[in-house]
Amino acid sequence: MSKHERIVMIGAGNVGSHLSKRFFEMGNPPVQVFSRKISKAKQLAKVVGAAPCNQLSDLFKDATIYILAIHDGAIGAVAEQLAIHLPEDALVVHTSGATPITVIKKHFKNYGSFYPLQTFSLQRAADFSTIPLLYDAPRKALRNRLQTLAKLICPNTYYITDKERATLHVAAVFVNNFTNQLFHIGDTILEDHHLSLDILRPLIKETIAKVANNRPYDMQTGPAKRGDEKTIQQHMDFLKKYPEYASIYALLSKDIRKTHS
Amino acid sequence: MSKHERIVMIGAGNVGSHLSKRFFEMGNPPVQVFSRKISKAKQLAKVVGAAPCNQLSDLFKDATIYILAIHDGAIGAVAEQLAIHLPEDALVVHTSGATPITVIKKHFKNYGSFYPLQTFSLQRAADFSTIPLLYDAPRKALRNRLQTLAKLICPNTYYITDKERATLHVAAVFVNNFTNQLFHIGDTILEDHHLSLDILRPLIKETIAKVANNRPYDMQTGPAKRGDEKTIQQHMDFLKKYPEYASIYALLSKDIRKTHS
Repeated sequence: MSKHERIVMIGAGNVGSHLSKRFFEMGNPPVQVFSRKISKAKQLAKVVGAAPCNQLSDLFKDATIYILAIHDGAIGAVAEQLAIHLPEDALVVHTSGATPITVIKKHFKNYGSFYPLQTFSLQRAADFSTIPLLYDAPRKALRNRLQTLAKLICPNTYYITDKERATLHVAAVFVNNFTNQLFHIGDTILEDHHLSLDILRPLIKETIAKVANNRPYDMQTGPAKRGDEKTIQQHMDFLKKYPEYASIYALLSKDIRKTHS
Repeated sequence: MSKHERIVMIGAGNVGSHLSKRFFEMGNPPVQVFSRKISKAKQLAKVVGAAPCNQLSDLFKDATIYILAIHDGAIGAVAEQLAIHLPEDALVVHTSGATPITVIKKHFKNYGSFYPLQTFSLQRAADFSTIPLLYDAPRKALRNRLQTLAKLICPNTYYITDKERATLHVAAVFVNNFTNQLFHIGDTILEDHHLSLDILRPLIKETIAKVANNRPYDMQTGPAKRGDEKTIQQHMDFLKKYPEYASIYALLSKDIRKTHS
């Protein structure tokens, strides 16, 4: 049986909202939700039945875990301020892929990370049944508590160190953020020419289906892989009106050539 | 009812193989398969019950359509040689995304394109029920014939001009070839650090699921979108040992910043 945690969610953005709702669904909702904007705190708090708050001094002192679901750059500063208001043995974790847990160590002795490796958007429901939840803490007892909390909301949990999490985060930027930007580029080019991304959706779907069971290296096709300089030149000519896209095309084509040479 | 075509497939690579097999499945197999390598011609010909051949002079003269499923750069030269061997009213089409149909016009009066917009790999079955088949020809009667042949193997057929097809092909390189290379980069970084791409597969899946019903622009997340310079700098530091990947990271991050500024 999982031990009930008294959760305070600090942050009501994409990650804070999705985590709060999932904790609520699984029967352990946050007791309090903090956001600098009280309207955002109230909106989320209402959904999950928590108390809203927009002052760190108003945070409950008796929660068992404080989850910092805030911008990476703000974690250190907020942890420092939290130290003024919370007991020194409070458990404080962050949800960042890129931030070492030691950023919190300076201010609390019980610290860690609780990182759902997914791209969240407020418009889309999150499917926690497939999301990997990566946790870390400096001591086994804390890791066990975080694992229990992680298991409550995700079947796939991993104990992942700072260094491993940072590596996964870099790779995640490539496979998610950059991939999405390539889709945006395709979308922009097609829209400018009165064509729809819909024609390419089967191709996008297959691009992903192919790597579900194969190494991406083995699945590469196209002019750069074939060394088809004539087609590459035609594409570069086409892209003259999109200088940024031309640079991206040239660089990625070069990298594909090098990978398959 | 679709009129039966006597198809000669010129090329036994990814596209030629998948098209031939699909024509076979749908009851109109090619009557002859050409490849410079007789072993490849024989291998495919055997599967689809066609005659193999590796000399252009041995091509049947009485086929109703000759499909050039060969490298973009070879289409002009092969069409020129075909003109020596085939009747001048033969219908000759290519399967290229990037090549104008006029490359064939110099040699035949009946010409066109027959382009399945998909990334084919010999190892993977192709799902023609979702693949868009783009066709073009200079006259309505020919287009009708190509549409009939296209409909035989694909529910989704589009009459697409040279210029539109070239635009779609550039966009396809971004959403498929380059996306796949980003997956390869993620895979390489993780493997170097004894981590598996498997942890990122739910993220990859969601990246695609998000754009099924949304514009990619609206789905962007991550450090570049947020303007999180500290994380970007950490990632650039991490990537010092991968100079090519660092360049790609910098360029795509810059483009995301510009897109969302």
